[in-house]
This record gives sequence, structure tokens and C-alpha cells, in this order.
Amino acid sequence: MKTVPVDTLKRFASDCLEAAGVSAPDAALVADTLVQADLWGHPSHGVLRLFWYIRRIQSGATKINVSEGSEQDPPLALSVLDGQDGLGQVVAHRAMRRAIAAARAHGIGAVAVHSSGHFGMAMYYSAMAAAEGCVGYICANASPAMAPVGGREKRIGTNPLSWGAPAGAHAPFLLDYANTAVARGKLYDARAKGHAVPEGWAIDSEGRATTDPHAGIAGTILPMAGHKGYGMALAVDLLSGVLSGSAFGSGITGPYVPEGRSGAGHFVLAIDIAAVRPLAEFEADMEQLIAELKATPRAAGVDEIYYPGELESHADILHRRVGVTLPAAVLDELREGAKALDVPFPF
Amino acid sequence: MKTVPVDTLKRFASDCLEAAGVSAPDAALVADTLVQADLWGHPSHGVLRLFWYIRRIQSGATKINVSEGSEQDPPLALSVLDGQDGLGQVVAHRAMRRAIAAARAHGIGAVAVHSSGHFGMAMYYSAMAAAEGCVGYICANASPAMAPVGGREKRIGTNPLSWGAPAGAHAPFLLDYANTAVARGKLYDARAKGHAVPEGWAIDSEGRATTDPHAGIAGTILPMAGHKGYGMALAVDLLSGVLSGSAFGSGITGPYVPEGRSGAGHFVLAIDIAAVRPLAEFEADMEQLIAELKATPRAAGVDEIYYPGELESHADILHRRVGVTLPAAVLDELREGAKALDVPFPF
Repeated sequence: MKTVPVDTLKRFASDCLEAAGVSAPDAALVADTLVQADLWGHPSHGVLRLFWYIRRIQSGATKINVSEGSEQDPPLALSVLDGQDGLGQVVAHRAMRRAIAAARAHGIGAVAVHSSGHFGMAMYYSAMAAAEGCVGYICANASPAMAPVGGREKRIGTNPLSWGAPAGAHAPFLLDYANTAVARGKLYDARAKGHAVPEGWAIDSEGRATTDPHAGIAGTILPMAGHKGYGMALAVDLLSGVLSGSAFGSGITGPYVPEGRSGAGHFVLAIDIAAVRPLAEFEADMEQLIAELKATPRAAGVDEIYYPGELESHADILHRRVGVTLPAAVLDELREGAKALDVPFPF
Repeated sequence: MKTVPVDTLKRFASDCLEAAGVSAPDAALVADTLVQADLWGHPSHGVLRLFWYIRRIQSGATKINVSEGSEQDPPLALSVLDGQDGLGQVVAHRAMRRAIAAARAHGIGAVAVHSSGHFGMAMYYSAMAAAEGCVGYICANASPAMAPVGGREKRIGTNPLSWGAPAGAHAPFLLDYANTAVARGKLYDARAKGHAVPEGWAIDSEGRATTDPHAGIAGTILPMAGHKGYGMALAVDLLSGVLSGSAFGSGITGPYVPEGRSGAGHFVLAIDIAAVRPLAEFEADMEQLIAELKATPRAAGVDEIYYPGELESHADILHRRVGVTLPAAVLDELREGAKALDVPFPF
């Protein structure tokens, strides 16, 4: 394990991407999204993934430095963006910028995105909207991760979504979740520790409920909250894939494999709060809502009640001060990847 | 138990509402939303609730025949609707009509609704969008039903949401769910039967996880999928209450009590599919997605895999043919309510 300074880590990730042919601004953006996930305390979406994206660039599955095309100014309230099989982070960032500009002009702005790729953490983009006085929404379809309710083979992605909004004196409200009951990694973790897993996490290869992590790994992860998570994952697929004309269902390739066009799509939305009511009033009400949540009588052993995005904001403040701690296995992978690209390893 | 014809039931519900002073068109609409819930196989939101709404009208908590005001033509992409403490069904119906008209003009249309009331089943309104070739979304905040994660007292509503879309040759995709783990009625049911309830449904009055329905009833229902349902319920509150300038948090009064201004708000969205891609292409892809779901290898004992809205569509076809079956207790309540209003009881 080693704790590394944030700026050095960001510079390093960006250098590696540039060495793989990514333009300086795009490399800086992708590096920022990865390091931001580490800062928020979600290392599963952090620099650990850097060379996953680079391997897909090297295989040609992900295109780099695709043309920006021309943007209408101001953008239409609803428009379509062709991601040209580019880096999902670059495409999603561009879509959210466009949605915010459209919201300024029309009160609400939306962008249906096709032919994009895996964009990392969804709340990176909803946070852009929150920072601009907007309510932001983004969702994406993803490679198959779970069975439909009643099925026993993976057909639907985790299909994450995020809502973001400013929260006055508080850090922004940032909700970000996948529609699977649990990340697959938690089954591997339970298997390694010899623990059973809770009911509702997984089914075995015959589609039967199981608490045995071995059986769950041979089977498939369940949707969050059963038919609710199944339905919301489909709603996300409908918005991200079917509406935009991107791939859908089992047609998406994940970032975990180096080959194969992603086909992922997104649906991106921004609402200009000031078009509905004065932003200061909205923010005062958010503060009141948060105060009410925090004043709720607490369960035994609970010190504080949090709202979505709050713990990430605390983690961000801490890690910016003390640095990001990377496990030895991640450091090794980054060192080897950098060597192959002739990028100096600064840690 | 008695099975009654659909048209007679709708006429009866409408007559009762008119006898309570509701205009003929508004009465017909509210009656249709209630009977439609019965037709879809969700009697918990059906005519069982007729006199809940009427009692709130009689107490003055719900205003009737409020002015329509003037509508901009075409509506702005994003606009605000003051529900004037009217019937939630009338307000939500008007908001969705406006959102669809806005989507025709701008590609996307949204309406932030404040000062409305409980609107019944959310999918009634998203189905309106689906029938018009749009993707529709609606959400509403509701009276306190669950504690925030870490709390032990109710502060947040069920805060339901619905996505709807056309699905080609199939009945429309209609997702509709509350962000609570389970309806409170299921705890009463388990208590009556002497059954334990699954983990994740409820906490006791000290905030501890419980499988004892008595303890759960004394405590509070949990959010669906823990922090995910908690977060989504807050996102719905933010959109329905805080954005629109309506009540929020614990400030909403439910339809279960006859007195007290509701304060509920909604957020209503319609996306004109044809503004993104030809509707026929969208529908063909929906058919392909549904075919793929249905072709998934099934778990033992499962005959068919369904998509959201499909079972409701089957129930609707059946009940329109054979009628709606009402339990004796519901018939008794309807009979007594009608008597007090001097409305003939037709069953």
C-alpha cells in the first residue's frame, strides 16, 4: 500500500492516456474522472481501471480524438449525440455540457447519446449540473450483469443512474447507484472469507435463491429489490439504448474486456432550477430537508444520518489533503502499464 | 365478494364524486383512474379508495373545480403548474397533457407541479405518454412512510415513480413502484397470519432490523434496497417538492386522513420519441428487447418472463371482460358512502 499525492496521480494517469494517443484535454478529463472516484472513496471505479480503458484504445475498440462535430447554439431542448465509439467519459462530459446549455435556453435540456462507452462513475456528470445550479440526471446501459426476474442467465446490465442537485451550504446531493442488488466483487469477497451472502444477492445456475457465494458466482447476481431493480434497469436501457438508437439488452460490451465495440448509450438531462423558482429558495429548502433528515431520532449505534453524496464529499476533502491510498496490486499494475508506454512511474 | 361490470362501477364512482360536488369531467377522470387500478389488478389503489378522496373533499382539505388558468400554446419546454390543492388525479392528468404538448413542440416537455394531492397510481399518467408515442415519467412525494437510513422514525414518503413507453405490438412498458421495501399492509397481513417477515422490510421502534411483524408495525418500514431506495425517495422529493416549491420531507399529508392540505408535488416529463428516431424503429427495438428477455433460460418453475406493465395489461383484458371483483368490506363501504350522498347503489 502507498499513499500518493492527488495531483501526481492525476498527472500520471493523464500522461499514460496521452502516451496511448489521447489528446491532452481528453486525457486530463478521463484522468480526473478516475481520480475523482478514488477521492470520493470509490476505488472500484478509480485509477485501478486506467489500463482497462487504455487496453480498449490499443485494441481499437475505443476510438480516440473523434471529431467534435458542430453544436447548435443554443442547443435544442432535446438533441442526439453520436459518441462515435469514443471514450465514454469524453462523450458523457460533452453531453452534460450540452444538456446544461440547453437547460439555460429552454429550462430543461436533454441529450440522447448513442455509440458511447463506459463513462466511469455517473455522479461525475450529475455533479457538473449541480455545480451549475441545475438538477442533473444521467443513466447508461451496461454489459449483461443480471438475469431478468424469472430468468437464470445474465441479460441486463447494472444500468447505473445518478441524480444530482445543489444543496445550499452543504455539498451537493449526488445519488449514484446500479440496479443490481450488489457488486459481483462482494460475492468473490464472501467466497474468499468463507462467509454466506444475504438472501436477495444471487441465484445459482438453476435460478434458485442461494446464500452460498460459490453457487452465486456460478449463477448470477439478482436485481436490486427484485422486480423494482429489474424494471428500473429496463427503464434505463430503454432511455440509454432503445431511445438513442444505441445497443441494448445483451448487446453491450463492458470495459472489462479489451476487445469489442461498447455500444453503450446514455440519457442525459439538466433542469435549470432558476427557470422554476429562485435558486436561493431551492437551496434553502434543500438545507431544511437535510436538517430534518439529520434531526430524525437515530437507531441504536448510529452517530449521524447522511444524505446521498455527503460521505463522498467528506472522503473527497480528506483525500485531497492526505492523498489517495493505492493497494500494492494496483501500484504494480500501474507500474507495468506505464513501463509498456514508456511513461515514468512517479511513486 | 361480488363481481361487478366495469362500466357500472365507473359510473357509480363518478356519480358519487359528482354528488360530492366534483364537475362531471373531473369526476369521470377520477373514477377512471380508480377503476383502472382495479382493472390492472392493483385493488389497493382502486375504488376501495373512493371515499378517502371524497372525505377529503367534504372536509375542505381537497379543493374541487379549481380554475384551469390559461395555458401557453404551445407550452414552454419546462413550466410550473399550481395544483391549487385540487384533486391530484385532475392535476397530474393536466400536467401530463401539458408535458406531452410541450414535447411535441420542443422534443421534451416537463412540468413541475406544486400544491397538488395524491394522484392514485403513477402509471396511469405515464401510460398517457406511451399512448402518444412518448416516453413518460412521473413522480410524486407522499406522506411520511419510512425512516432515513440510520433513523428510527418516519420522515420520508413512499415517493412513487413511473416510467412508461410504447412497446410496439406489445402492451406498453409501464414501470411503477414505491421506494419503500414493501407496502405497510404486508406487515398487517403477516401479523394476522402469524408469519415472520423477511429481513429488509422493517425496523423496530429502536431502529433494529426485525423479522417480527408486531415489532415492525411498532417501528417503521425500510426503504427498498436500503440506501438506494432512501436515495431515490429523496431524489423524488427533490424533484416533486423542493424543485416545484411544494411541501417536502414530513410536510405532506396522505390521502388516508380526511383533514389537512396535502402539499404533495409532482415532476412530470414527456419525451417525443419521434424527435430522436422514427417511432417505428423505437418500437421494433422494444419488441426485440422484450423478445430477448422472454427467451432468457428460465429458473425452475417459471413459465414465462414478464416485462413491467405486461401483467397489468393481462389483468386489464381479463377484468374488462369478466368484471371487477370487490370484497364484501369494500362493497359495504361503498354502499354506506353512497347512501350518505343519496346516490343509488347499483350492485
